[in-house]
Amino acid sequence: MADQHAQPAEDSRATEIPAIRWEEPPEGPVLVLLDQTRLPTEEVEFVCTDASALVEAIRSLAVRGAPLLGIAGAYGVALAAARGFDVEDAAAALAGARPTAVNLAVGVRRAHSAYRAELGKGGDARQAAEAALTAARTLHREDAEASARMAERGLALLDELLPGGGHRILTHCNTGSLVSGGEGTAFAVALAAHRAGRLRRLWVDETRPLLQGARLTAYEAARRGMAYTLLTDSAAGSLFAAGEVDAVLIGADRIAADGSVANKVGSYPLAVLARYHHVPFIVVAPVTTVDPDTPDGAAIEVEQRPGFEVTEITSPQVTVTGAGGGIPVAPLGTQAYNPAFDVTPPELVTAIVTEEGAVSPVTAEALAEVCDRSRQVTI
Amino acid sequence: MADQHAQPAEDSRATEIPAIRWEEPPEGPVLVLLDQTRLPTEEVEFVCTDASALVEAIRSLAVRGAPLLGIAGAYGVALAAARGFDVEDAAAALAGARPTAVNLAVGVRRAHSAYRAELGKGGDARQAAEAALTAARTLHREDAEASARMAERGLALLDELLPGGGHRILTHCNTGSLVSGGEGTAFAVALAAHRAGRLRRLWVDETRPLLQGARLTAYEAARRGMAYTLLTDSAAGSLFAAGEVDAVLIGADRIAADGSVANKVGSYPLAVLARYHHVPFIVVAPVTTVDPDTPDGAAIEVEQRPGFEVTEITSPQVTVTGAGGGIPVAPLGTQAYNPAFDVTPPELVTAIVTEEGAVSPVTAEALAEVCDRSRQVTI
Repeated sequence: MADQHAQPAEDSRATEIPAIRWEEPPEGPVLVLLDQTRLPTEEVEFVCTDASALVEAIRSLAVRGAPLLGIAGAYGVALAAARGFDVEDAAAALAGARPTAVNLAVGVRRAHSAYRAELGKGGDARQAAEAALTAARTLHREDAEASARMAERGLALLDELLPGGGHRILTHCNTGSLVSGGEGTAFAVALAAHRAGRLRRLWVDETRPLLQGARLTAYEAARRGMAYTLLTDSAAGSLFAAGEVDAVLIGADRIAADGSVANKVGSYPLAVLARYHHVPFIVVAPVTTVDPDTPDGAAIEVEQRPGFEVTEITSPQVTVTGAGGGIPVAPLGTQAYNPAFDVTPPELVTAIVTEEGAVSPVTAEALAEVCDRSRQVTI
Repeated sequence: MADQHAQPAEDSRATEIPAIRWEEPPEGPVLVLLDQTRLPTEEVEFVCTDASALVEAIRSLAVRGAPLLGIAGAYGVALAAARGFDVEDAAAALAGARPTAVNLAVGVRRAHSAYRAELGKGGDARQAAEAALTAARTLHREDAEASARMAERGLALLDELLPGGGHRILTHCNTGSLVSGGEGTAFAVALAAHRAGRLRRLWVDETRPLLQGARLTAYEAARRGMAYTLLTDSAAGSLFAAGEVDAVLIGADRIAADGSVANKVGSYPLAVLARYHHVPFIVVAPVTTVDPDTPDGAAIEVEQRPGFEVTEITSPQVTVTGAGGGIPVAPLGTQAYNPAFDVTPPELVTAIVTEEGAVSPVTAEALAEVCDRSRQVTI
């Protein structure tokens, strides 16, 4: 396997279809993706033999999730180089496939820089392609390693906060191996608890409007043999009231310098419920998610998504009928409020777990200190 | 029109298709229902010429909502009597069409008692049928009148709590004329604010899993020309955080003697969010909703609904595929936690508005006092 470094845990990965993998069959290198738009009903792989196929896969959301997009972008550059396509064109097309995904551009740049550096040193096209592939694999491995460290630190924190084990964890959206080079962020912690025999139940919010919880997290939990139960987002309140939630674990899309956490819409209400019921609310994210240029929550711009995600239900199994290609569930012309994310202020966050350590209580100083630790290691 | 008494407000009802109406064409009396399973994409009427058709309509949820089921049941007895069917059989079939809906049995009993009383007094079949119809119409009118009084009292309370008008109201599930002989409960208050020019925005929670907010409340709001916006249930948190909600208005399925409110799942998280953001949380329900035999919230048994409501998306526009007849959105075999209701404790409820007056703060004594007022009027 070309991407063996990306497989930190051996126990259950054997039966799993990786979200992304580099293969080198006799016909030449390919990048193989698990088509996430077809999950959970169909496990279909999407084979890219050139960067333009990967651009299409990124645009159609066959591959998604910030860290995974970065890794895909880097492999895309390596693929163009290995197959003898124009690497400059491929890098530009890949970096622009989803303009808001900063990780994508960063991943593309990393492989592209390695490629150019090798050429600059007098290397030939084959050597430059090798350099790009090495850069992609390194990014993939680093992400997997960060996942493993977050999982370990997150589980240690859980065990500390909830002595006695038997954790009942509520999670939101999808934060597992489908969005990561490793086993993810919040999901990786739940998985570590499962492996340690200390996960009693993973409560999976369905995560409207796009149902990433139902479609993807439930899929990952089922694949790993975890004890999980799906629920509508608003049924979480009943679980808290019944004392059935020991901790909330979520990921983050961006963390401001003051510790405000932007994550999938629906995270903030969980934080309020957790506070009201004295349940720990834990954010798991790599230090790269912390954005020192965003001072606080108010400075985080929240993407407003199209209304048809709410007014229509879309599914790959359904014929196109509405304006958004789905089944209309609201009157024609209904206006919808559809923010992609919400912002949880630091005072509602019990801890932020990164690969460099956990921050608790969440303060700007403690967060900066953890990020500095990461920079020292990198330099 | 046979049901003219059920139309308390003249202004906008003219353009509306009533949820239920009694008609007497030359071919004989019929009960006409708006088929709620086809909303909002199709407005189709369901014409019942006998009680068994109505039983079918009740079972298929073509007609639904506690007060409306009671009215439908009463008309069903009147229909059987007017058409010369066996009234005893019809009453038994109607009362058992949905065993958990207590209002249905109560409505059936009311028309049936009137029918038998007339026979007992020596009346003939025609006179007994007339008595049953009069009982159904009286129930219909009483429900409409209770709606109108709740709307008036609810609006007065809103104006008192939020001086200056321009109310931005968040609501959950469906509480309008589709569940009532009149204009409903919480929705009727929002509608009164709209007519008074004081509704700035009605925020409509989609209300997973059955989407009554998207399918039905948005339909009613659009029909009335109200300024409304649909949102996923978990996006409500962002609205509260942005200061965009002035009050929450919901209905109730049952209110315990201590003021604990059982209502559609998702109501309790809104109550917690409302408390956290210092926003009034107002329950609007007729006094018949108060159950003195249920001492408190813990004594309320919450119906657990089938998991396929969460693991599949159903729609009348979609061909049957999954076990529940919908589109699977979670892995096969996924277990779902799907409570139909949740319970909000009285300390989170700012006020309970009934047709007999508003209770605020919510205490067992104040609630009992309002219920007594109603009993005095009835006796």
